[in-house]
Amino acid sequence: MTAPGAHHSGPASAAAWFERAERLAAEFAATAVARDKAGGTAKAERDRLRDSGLLNLIIPAEYGGHGFDWHDTLRIVRIISRADSAMGHLFGFQHLLLATVRLFGEQWPHYYRETARNGWFWGNTLNPLDTRARILPDGPDWLIHGSKSFCSGAMDSDHLIVSALTEAGKLVIAAVPSDRPGIHIHADWDNMGQRQTDSGSVDFHEVRVYDREILRSPGPLGSVFASLRPLIAQLVLTNIYLGIGEGALAEARAYTQSQSRPWFLSSAPSATKDPYVLQKYGEFWVELNATALATDYAARLLDAAWRQENALTAAERAEAAVACATAKVLATRAGLDVTQRLFEVTGARATSAQAGLDRFWRNLRTHSLHDPVDYKLLDLGEWALNGQAPTPSFYS
Amino acid sequence: MTAPGAHHSGPASAAAWFERAERLAAEFAATAVARDKAGGTAKAERDRLRDSGLLNLIIPAEYGGHGFDWHDTLRIVRIISRADSAMGHLFGFQHLLLATVRLFGEQWPHYYRETARNGWFWGNTLNPLDTRARILPDGPDWLIHGSKSFCSGAMDSDHLIVSALTEAGKLVIAAVPSDRPGIHIHADWDNMGQRQTDSGSVDFHEVRVYDREILRSPGPLGSVFASLRPLIAQLVLTNIYLGIGEGALAEARAYTQSQSRPWFLSSAPSATKDPYVLQKYGEFWVELNATALATDYAARLLDAAWRQENALTAAERAEAAVACATAKVLATRAGLDVTQRLFEVTGARATSAQAGLDRFWRNLRTHSLHDPVDYKLLDLGEWALNGQAPTPSFYS
Amino acid sequence: MTAPGAHHSGPASAAAWFERAERLAAEFAATAVARDKAGGTAKAERDRLRDSGLLNLIIPAEYGGHGFDWHDTLRIVRIISRADSAMGHLFGFQHLLLATVRLFGEQWPHYYRETARNGWFWGNTLNPLDTRARILPDGPDWLIHGSKSFCSGAMDSDHLIVSALTEAGKLVIAAVPSDRPGIHIHADWDNMGQRQTDSGSVDFHEVRVYDREILRSPGPLGSVFASLRPLIAQLVLTNIYLGIGEGALAEARAYTQSQSRPWFLSSAPSATKDPYVLQKYGEFWVELNATALATDYAARLLDAAWRQENALTAAERAEAAVACATAKVLATRAGLDVTQRLFEVTGARATSAQAGLDRFWRNLRTHSLHDPVDYKLLDLGEWALNGQAPTPSFYS
Amino acid sequence: MTAPGAHHSGPASAAAWFERAERLAAEFAATAVARDKAGGTAKAERDRLRDSGLLNLIIPAEYGGHGFDWHDTLRIVRIISRADSAMGHLFGFQHLLLATVRLFGEQWPHYYRETARNGWFWGNTLNPLDTRARILPDGPDWLIHGSKSFCSGAMDSDHLIVSALTEAGKLVIAAVPSDRPGIHIHADWDNMGQRQTDSGSVDFHEVRVYDREILRSPGPLGSVFASLRPLIAQLVLTNIYLGIGEGALAEARAYTQSQSRPWFLSSAPSATKDPYVLQKYGEFWVELNATALATDYAARLLDAAWRQENALTAAERAEAAVACATAKVLATRAGLDVTQRLFEVTGARATSAQAGLDRFWRNLRTHSLHDPVDYKLLDLGEWALNGQAPTPSFYS
Repeated sequence: MTAPGAHHSGPASAAAWFERAERLAAEFAATAVARDKAGGTAKAERDRLRDSGLLNLIIPAEYGGHGFDWHDTLRIVRIISRADSAMGHLFGFQHLLLATVRLFGEQWPHYYRETARNGWFWGNTLNPLDTRARILPDGPDWLIHGSKSFCSGAMDSDHLIVSALTEAGKLVIAAVPSDRPGIHIHADWDNMGQRQTDSGSVDFHEVRVYDREILRSPGPLGSVFASLRPLIAQLVLTNIYLGIGEGALAEARAYTQSQSRPWFLSSAPSATKDPYVLQKYGEFWVELNATALATDYAARLLDAAWRQENALTAAERAEAAVACATAKVLATRAGLDVTQRLFEVTGARATSAQAGLDRFWRNLRTHSLHDPVDYKLLDLGEWALNGQAPTPSFYS
Repeated sequence: MTAPGAHHSGPASAAAWFERAERLAAEFAATAVARDKAGGTAKAERDRLRDSGLLNLIIPAEYGGHGFDWHDTLRIVRIISRADSAMGHLFGFQHLLLATVRLFGEQWPHYYRETARNGWFWGNTLNPLDTRARILPDGPDWLIHGSKSFCSGAMDSDHLIVSALTEAGKLVIAAVPSDRPGIHIHADWDNMGQRQTDSGSVDFHEVRVYDREILRSPGPLGSVFASLRPLIAQLVLTNIYLGIGEGALAEARAYTQSQSRPWFLSSAPSATKDPYVLQKYGEFWVELNATALATDYAARLLDAAWRQENALTAAERAEAAVACATAKVLATRAGLDVTQRLFEVTGARATSAQAGLDRFWRNLRTHSLHDPVDYKLLDLGEWALNGQAPTPSFYS
Repeated sequence: MTAPGAHHSGPASAAAWFERAERLAAEFAATAVARDKAGGTAKAERDRLRDSGLLNLIIPAEYGGHGFDWHDTLRIVRIISRADSAMGHLFGFQHLLLATVRLFGEQWPHYYRETARNGWFWGNTLNPLDTRARILPDGPDWLIHGSKSFCSGAMDSDHLIVSALTEAGKLVIAAVPSDRPGIHIHADWDNMGQRQTDSGSVDFHEVRVYDREILRSPGPLGSVFASLRPLIAQLVLTNIYLGIGEGALAEARAYTQSQSRPWFLSSAPSATKDPYVLQKYGEFWVELNATALATDYAARLLDAAWRQENALTAAERAEAAVACATAKVLATRAGLDVTQRLFEVTGARATSAQAGLDRFWRNLRTHSLHDPVDYKLLDLGEWALNGQAPTPSFYS
Repeated sequence: MTAPGAHHSGPASAAAWFERAERLAAEFAATAVARDKAGGTAKAERDRLRDSGLLNLIIPAEYGGHGFDWHDTLRIVRIISRADSAMGHLFGFQHLLLATVRLFGEQWPHYYRETARNGWFWGNTLNPLDTRARILPDGPDWLIHGSKSFCSGAMDSDHLIVSALTEAGKLVIAAVPSDRPGIHIHADWDNMGQRQTDSGSVDFHEVRVYDREILRSPGPLGSVFASLRPLIAQLVLTNIYLGIGEGALAEARAYTQSQSRPWFLSSAPSATKDPYVLQKYGEFWVELNATALATDYAARLLDAAWRQENALTAAERAEAAVACATAKVLATRAGLDVTQRLFEVTGARATSAQAGLDRFWRNLRTHSLHDPVDYKLLDLGEWALNGQAPTPSFYS
């Protein structure tokens, strides 16, 4: 762990940050198979992320961060996800949660500064589809009571974003310290993929929330600008999926080159020259490359929209939303294809637990269910056929 | 375990054997998730198979077995594979190895009788692509020395089928007791799928093989009839894959009905009425149903060919081989599709390790690499375009 | 044209009828490209069908027909469709319309006998989705007034099946001679495919229909047995689609063998040995073979249901309906794939208008829109997930 | 036709040229269905292209052209192809042939100037796979004798690019006036698609070619820079395919909105709200959008490479080649999918010959066979797996 304040420092150039991310990714890769098997909290890796300064990329320099735009921040989500998509997930959600504060609450400068100063790692307890947590007034303050599922990165976090419903059913979102009394973060995430994301449950037992912690102005999706939040969420996911696909391709390639043998009926001198093996690598390339172009294009539209702040129009938001949904569909499909078929270019021995090549599919399959791709296609169909922009929600 | 001789008995009707298989499958299903996690040898389940009498299905009644044809035997491979494809694999290979004796060696009546009498569970150390094991003459006997990989079911087996190469490079296949001195069966199978098949390595350290144990007449693929062996292998695999797909569909259906919720944008009253969920179940049905029809059709051609014995013509063999290859391609594709997409009809919560729904994909993905589907398509292309029959080999 | 009465005769064995169909198909094939270009009514070919006796296949011998079951009748639909799917369509609809009389009206023996005696070619003016034609009482008789679209085979027909709505919106179906005054059959079918099916419009101008011509007992879909009509319709379509796919494969094969050259980068000595060409032929084989098995399976269930007559249960009907829908989905997909990709195994020169290879795709694409495959999948999804049988309609 | 010299003029801004192209495309669209049916030479449309000044887009201003880069020139290929892919083809090949002169011969300034001054429309008789045309010395000149197939745009052209082989088998390429004695351009293109491209045969009967007309320095693919020629060819094709897909989508959308009705089992109030219709439009959007991004990306790499001229490195060329191949695969697949499935979102009535919606598929299917997509994937597989750049040829 690093002393508070250490996070201001770091390399000056973007290239140097990318290099730092690549080094960290290589480090994570070395233990990824073992940690996937173990599950649980990746405490050491989380601390390496804290120490790296990468958690503050999106925070402007004037608030103590590194002033990255979304395009570059998301590229780093992708780099880490290639090596370890659980770490990529936690890293991406750090920035999503910072964006949530920035977009929903006027108190964001405070949180930007404190995050940069203290090296806060943010955790997620915002889940609009899980309606069990309620918020009630208690004098000038509020109390949250109830539970949340899928709380990625809440464990070992410093600060949480939490959502709850008022008695009238209104969604309220707040930022609270993770050690606030009454918050019980459970180590109950045991899933087939994304096993070190700690995406388990959190119970809130009459947890006090101060009024200044409520992200009220403009509030959740409270303006066109605020409605960029789901786009950031979608692009974080997209970059994780794409990173998984790219990581899978890289490991497959290394395996085919070093260990695969041509099938006995193949006239190729090596597996790397088999016509069907090459065909599949060609297809992997095409789909991952198309996804990368679409993902970076969406990130650029997001950055343009982000810079507009409150001048952002619904039409500009729509264009960015459509680009994000397009990239997400592509990343889901490309990733599933590569992670499933990589075994056809590596062969039967590549199924050994030691190689751990199934983790790519398990990770992607798990995370790709965050929200259904069918409903992304529905959004895109409405756009393509009826010219109707996606209705802003926590998923579109 | 059952006393020797107990295996003669059993239900008289095929229906009763199917019922027994279904009960055993239900039993295996209850522990399948836990055993998949544990890996290792399924000793208890192997003994339940021994006790069931099902290991002798294909042996004619006159030799103490139950006189099943391949169609029905393979249906039972499928039934068991729905619940637990590792057990389906071991059960299917029992019959493949019995067929190996029947087809390659004139001493088959002895082995049929002894298998039925003693309840032998056969294990596999025949792997023609692994050329490390050699066989050398030693007086009137022979010695095998070397190693074999992918030895499914060798662990805890009673008898083995082993292959080795002579100095001249000729493939020799023999039947030897598993406890013959010098045979070292390793518990080193730790793979992403088919985890309880014990498909690890076996070392042969100057293992004596008696001449009467060599399957020499007609020998490996030594006649048109003997060349039915790979067709049986392919259909065993096909039924395992299809069983996995059907098992996955059944678990998905139960999950969707009991636990899935419609996406918040769906106008359907329940997940079971969502248009995209229904579309996928429709597709699953179509592909599994087509596979089942093609698989049963191939089994019927196999039975017809099997009954021909030495009167079997190359043309009849070709027709059966093409039907087997067709079914195998269909089963591979259908199975991969269902086991991957079942999560899209069950949802994010279905990724919990407790549900264990990823085992279907891991099992199928692992086993479907036995031999490449691309080269099956090549065989079928030669047939469809050039009218050229598949060249008999251990894979076609 | 043949003299009345001539249709009683014909070969005694099924094999001989198949041979006759194959000969007729070969004849149609010789002019198929030219007739596809010309469009319009295939008068000569329609008369060849009349002369062949094949129009009476499904009529039992006691009524003057040839006593074919559906399985064999549909095989002949397929044989003709391989050569010319427009002729296959007209031939298939002949039997669908005979089945309509058989299933909906107690007067079917009369129509069976007269069809066999006079060699009637039936035409279709039954279109339940086109609600423009109305039927009103006129004394003891009825008058039909209005229009119908998609009236395949009405032109040059001898007898029509017509549908119309009563004032109360009830569907009424009748059999009327095609030359009944007031019926105006238009030569206005000019579509991209199935160009010689005369599927244009028919106007009914106060057309008198006698009460005895109304198919009232049990009426349209008026019993479980009567609800086999849509299954026959679906299987006729399925066999046409499959025939198109098989015909396309046969022509592609002949072209690849005789005219295609390997791509200059291919190391294959001929196009017939190129690994990607063979892969595609393998895939064509797999999908057409699976479709054929599913189609024949559905036909056998249909025959079993047909033989049940009024003893047919809803459960038996459901099983047959599901098999028909499964085969239809398979045939649509396989056919579209083969007819589109055949060009990838024949090459650029195969696009010449003289070769006419695009007619397969145009014919299939056109006819496959008869009813949407998406709603077939929905039916099958309801069956696979919810165990709900397809609701009988004119399409399920 | 326009007087020589008129082509210097034209709008000053790129936007105005785009607008002019859009207007011309709209004009072509109005008659596209009728002209597709008619086939033959689109004389009027070719002259409209001549008059428009668009034929000189890629020629720098100093040589009398409009100084477009490839990105924008190819966008205009796409715009025209949306409306009429035969015209898009001829327009694209004009620029490909100009590039051929530019890249292969030092005399390009002359041809640039004369093209701009005289409004030359170039035709293609370069076909390296058709080896029938030979070139022999005749004193200081040369004589070409033999035939060429697939000579798109030779008919009604002003100048031709021709290829022939020397006795030693060396490929020679020259620029000759189309009216040079001995050149016989045949009106024998009658194919299923791209029907107004005049892609028929040309006979050369001892055609004199002056030495100054030989493109010898650096000659065909004679330098890294010269090897950009196939990349331009591939991107022209890619933009035609993409244009076809986009044109098909636009017509489908107009049809669905104005004429399609929801299937009777759909609960949607209109076809435009049917969940399966929207799903397909979503998929069309995703694949066309990904293709457009990849296509524009490749064009930018091409422009960068083009600007390098003789400083272009093999590594830069490789990156551009890979981007072009990626885009071509995407465009082929997206285009085939959209042009085939558009009927599923428009319905059975959309198959009328009057609507002419099948022309999109016929055009794309025909042109997509120019060179096999399988061998593009092979190139990309070599790149992705083995890091091997595509070997420059007339197709890679």
